[in-house]
Amino acid sequence: MEIPKIRKAKSSDSKDIIRLLVELAVYEKEPDAVKITEEELIRDGFGPNPRFECLLAELHSEIVGLAFYTPRYSTWVGDTLHLEDLIVTENMRGRGVGTLLYREFLLEAKHRGVNRVEWSVLDWNKTAIDFYKKTGAIIDGLEQWKIVRMDKKIIEKYLSS
Amino acid sequence: MEIPKIRKAKSSDSKDIIRLLVELAVYEKEPDAVKITEEELIRDGFGPNPRFECLLAELHSEIVGLAFYTPRYSTWVGDTLHLEDLIVTENMRGRGVGTLLYREFLLEAKHRGVNRVEWSVLDWNKTAIDFYKKTGAIIDGLEQWKIVRMDKKIIEKYLSS
Repeated sequence: MEIPKIRKAKSSDSKDIIRLLVELAVYEKEPDAVKITEEELIRDGFGPNPRFECLLAELHSEIVGLAFYTPRYSTWVGDTLHLEDLIVTENMRGRGVGTLLYREFLLEAKHRGVNRVEWSVLDWNKTAIDFYKKTGAIIDGLEQWKIVRMDKKIIEKYLSS
Repeated sequence: MEIPKIRKAKSSDSKDIIRLLVELAVYEKEPDAVKITEEELIRDGFGPNPRFECLLAELHSEIVGLAFYTPRYSTWVGDTLHLEDLIVTENMRGRGVGTLLYREFLLEAKHRGVNRVEWSVLDWNKTAIDFYKKTGAIIDGLEQWKIVRMDKKIIEKYLSS
């Protein structure tokens, strides 16, 4: 397989972003959860005051995955990035696309010098949990939602591994 | 008891903010967790591109509580507010200061028209969980960290209750 190109999303990618968000919602058993529209994504992500950032995996001009994140601020460590979603389209799973996006997201975190990245994972999503654990992420709790964190040192360690 | 005044934090409040953050960290059994400094708070919260917002409860010129929050963006519902910390100084607990701050935070969320507010709560913090439940917040999971959410309707309902 050729390696997908990872790049920042543009406003013209909003339709593809929505398609992937819906795909994840279906996977998470919440098929009707995605309420935002293409127009709202364009307005909120690509205007003068962007509220989120998004990395895309592109293969043969098709968008096959994304990493969607927002800045947050911790009262313990200051600037953090919150990974809202990491999605790979179904027929491309298991081929390393998620890992490419994940690394690029962590690189972005590193470049910005944030002290933490964080996200949530559903407790039955064993594949994701195993993946995160393997990368050194710390996973709290054992229930339906968990808070997953990676500090500067772990990010550093994973990226240099 | 007189009712504390709730107001937005100014950069000159940063010392008091740090004092309250440390107090919470001690309560959460992480006495050394607060790594940010007064200078960083001033730079990150009160400059041209503020990364957080903070409401304070002031009584007789003393800061007795805070609500510290950041904007986030949900791929399901768009703009949200993430409540990082809600703190009331120890000798003022149980007097409704937290409720005042909580309501003001939710009012802010309402005014902005965000579709969700969210935060985390430690599973052994039964007082907080009971309080959040009583206000109609939805609490997921039963483990150490939980994700707590309140949607537009619940916010509306609580504020009009």
